[in-house]
Amino acid sequence: MSQAGFTAPLRVLLGPGPSDVAPSVLRALSTPTFGHLDPRLVAALDELRAMLRTICATQNEATLAVSGTGTSAMECALVNLIEPGQVVLVAVHGYFGARIAEIAERCGASVIRVEGAWGRASDPERLRAAAHGQHVDLLALVHAETSTGVVQDLAPMRKLADELGAMLAVDAVTSVGCMPVGIDANRVDALWSCSQKGLSCTPGLSPVSFSPRALERIAKRTRKVQSFYLDLQLLLDFWGGAHGYHHTISSNLVCGLHEAARLVIEEGLEARFARHRTQARALAAGLREFGLELLVPEAERLPQLTTVLIPDGVADAQVRGRLLDEFGIEIGGGLGPLKGRIWRIGLMGGGATRRNVLTCLAALKVALAAEGFRVVGDGLEAARASYAAS
Amino acid sequence: MSQAGFTAPLRVLLGPGPSDVAPSVLRALSTPTFGHLDPRLVAALDELRAMLRTICATQNEATLAVSGTGTSAMECALVNLIEPGQVVLVAVHGYFGARIAEIAERCGASVIRVEGAWGRASDPERLRAAAHGQHVDLLALVHAETSTGVVQDLAPMRKLADELGAMLAVDAVTSVGCMPVGIDANRVDALWSCSQKGLSCTPGLSPVSFSPRALERIAKRTRKVQSFYLDLQLLLDFWGGAHGYHHTISSNLVCGLHEAARLVIEEGLEARFARHRTQARALAAGLREFGLELLVPEAERLPQLTTVLIPDGVADAQVRGRLLDEFGIEIGGGLGPLKGRIWRIGLMGGGATRRNVLTCLAALKVALAAEGFRVVGDGLEAARASYAAS
Repeated sequence: MSQAGFTAPLRVLLGPGPSDVAPSVLRALSTPTFGHLDPRLVAALDELRAMLRTICATQNEATLAVSGTGTSAMECALVNLIEPGQVVLVAVHGYFGARIAEIAERCGASVIRVEGAWGRASDPERLRAAAHGQHVDLLALVHAETSTGVVQDLAPMRKLADELGAMLAVDAVTSVGCMPVGIDANRVDALWSCSQKGLSCTPGLSPVSFSPRALERIAKRTRKVQSFYLDLQLLLDFWGGAHGYHHTISSNLVCGLHEAARLVIEEGLEARFARHRTQARALAAGLREFGLELLVPEAERLPQLTTVLIPDGVADAQVRGRLLDEFGIEIGGGLGPLKGRIWRIGLMGGGATRRNVLTCLAALKVALAAEGFRVVGDGLEAARASYAAS
Repeated sequence: MSQAGFTAPLRVLLGPGPSDVAPSVLRALSTPTFGHLDPRLVAALDELRAMLRTICATQNEATLAVSGTGTSAMECALVNLIEPGQVVLVAVHGYFGARIAEIAERCGASVIRVEGAWGRASDPERLRAAAHGQHVDLLALVHAETSTGVVQDLAPMRKLADELGAMLAVDAVTSVGCMPVGIDANRVDALWSCSQKGLSCTPGLSPVSFSPRALERIAKRTRKVQSFYLDLQLLLDFWGGAHGYHHTISSNLVCGLHEAARLVIEEGLEARFARHRTQARALAAGLREFGLELLVPEAERLPQLTTVLIPDGVADAQVRGRLLDEFGIEIGGGLGPLKGRIWRIGLMGGGATRRNVLTCLAALKVALAAEGFRVVGDGLEAARASYAAS
């Protein structure tokens, strides 16, 4: 991987994202650039929107991709939905729930943060209690918490939002393409994601989707959205009917995401989700066989992101450094209070493969042994048994 | 240019951006993705910052690239510099000056718009008069107005800003890589650009640069920046010393821009700027020889973007459609009040070549003739004479 002036590494991306990008997506990224108002680009955007609707299980007309990373998509959803003084209830059981609350505050909202344990899902009852019976404008939470590996069941949250008279905004950055997000089934009003995890593309174009009800609320805003770049009406004018100029979307990123979305649909959503579950089970079996403990109870565990407790006496940085330097494998460290306490192993999108599970286990075994950790079981054998049982 | 599921067009990009991307940059874009916290990525960011400082002629430590298009970079500069209630004086002589004013208003500023003719530079005297002697917090303007093809001389604007006690913020979206921007020479406090014009990369990573004085003002803010995604302190934490996680920058875009910046420096800034001037003169000579009129007087004309008046009786859409369909050439139409009145022909970055000048003139001659416009002179001969005189 060398070119004049730049030598890039070749990695196996088993962290919390980005995930490994398919060769056909990399090729698509290098499609000679064409204009943001080119008729072919406009057609590609329509095709992309249709594929994103399929992947997110929604009929939402307002489904598109923001020209930025997942955080810009989060900000897009929140700046459009929130007006200063509104009450926003946020479930915070990890780094990204806290980020929602932070952005909502920067939108001028009155934010009620309901803090839960990092490594568990939020309890709807505690959120209900925190609202103290007052009207809530928006309930916002993370579907798949990237910092902990926890899934949050959306159905009870939709029920709670209905009781509170609130819209429901959902961070699906780590779930889209790995597991069902069910926008329409769960009546989610705004959802955001990214391109570099379950969709296995490079970062830079991030899906967002808004319900018709959310669009109605946005149309009734009394003041302009504080971000011009992320103003949904302006984005819809560009992506939709008139295709008026708003910003210069990258044809390279559009070509890449178009191909990545095509690969998802070609595989089939159910097959893709099942593949994630199969690989996650095998990885978990192997890690447990080593004598390692997982952070999250099985019922709340994400298949695409497994969080492992770092054993006592094992140095976080040494193990991750050895995986990177000797095996070219990237896994993630912990964020916030979990820094130095967990590793985050992603099997996302195209990266959820048997080869990656076995490679990761084998390399981790070597790295743990180098740290003096006595690996109990074989790991690889346990993973093999898990596959046999699948 | 075909791949499963997507047939992309092959264009010659002679509009107001994107410009044609070099093969080595396209290859760099398809470098297998690696992590945003990978040591090699961090090193690449340092290299990229150093190259951007060279290209923008600045020592500013706070020089980096925002993960978004040029409009996100504009918003980044403005949301960080402006606090609600501050007075912002904006020179509006085109679409992008108006966009600055729009974003400044969304930041809660008290905006004084000084409207000038679209197609001419702004007069510092008119801005001085509009300030009515009051303190101004920020003077903001466009260096190279993409909607009109006008260059604004920065030195008198810096002088005016000093008189008003204001910082100076400059949109250099269309100038960086095509002509000197002289951040330090002109004591510009904040400057933003893009990757897809003078740097001939794909859009998605947009340079910004802040003076030490601007950083001081930002450090003294009384309230948080309204955008989390574009909060300079957080961006500096990621790009700078600690490399703390803020957002997932795309390694593909970093590799692409790194290679594009390397090409600029390899060519040499003076040689590159001279090449733009040479090609622009030849294009202008050819267009005038056809009997066409240019919008902007020579002294205020951008070399990288030539604006031509559409002759009476010639249909804008027909000509641009024919150039695109029959020749694969993209040129730009007018924006706002200039819609249907001008064409915008870009010779930007790698696209400022003799081949493109001659191709554009030849194709335009055919397209004009098809519209019944009687082309007066040869055009190609005039361009050749211009080269001979260079």
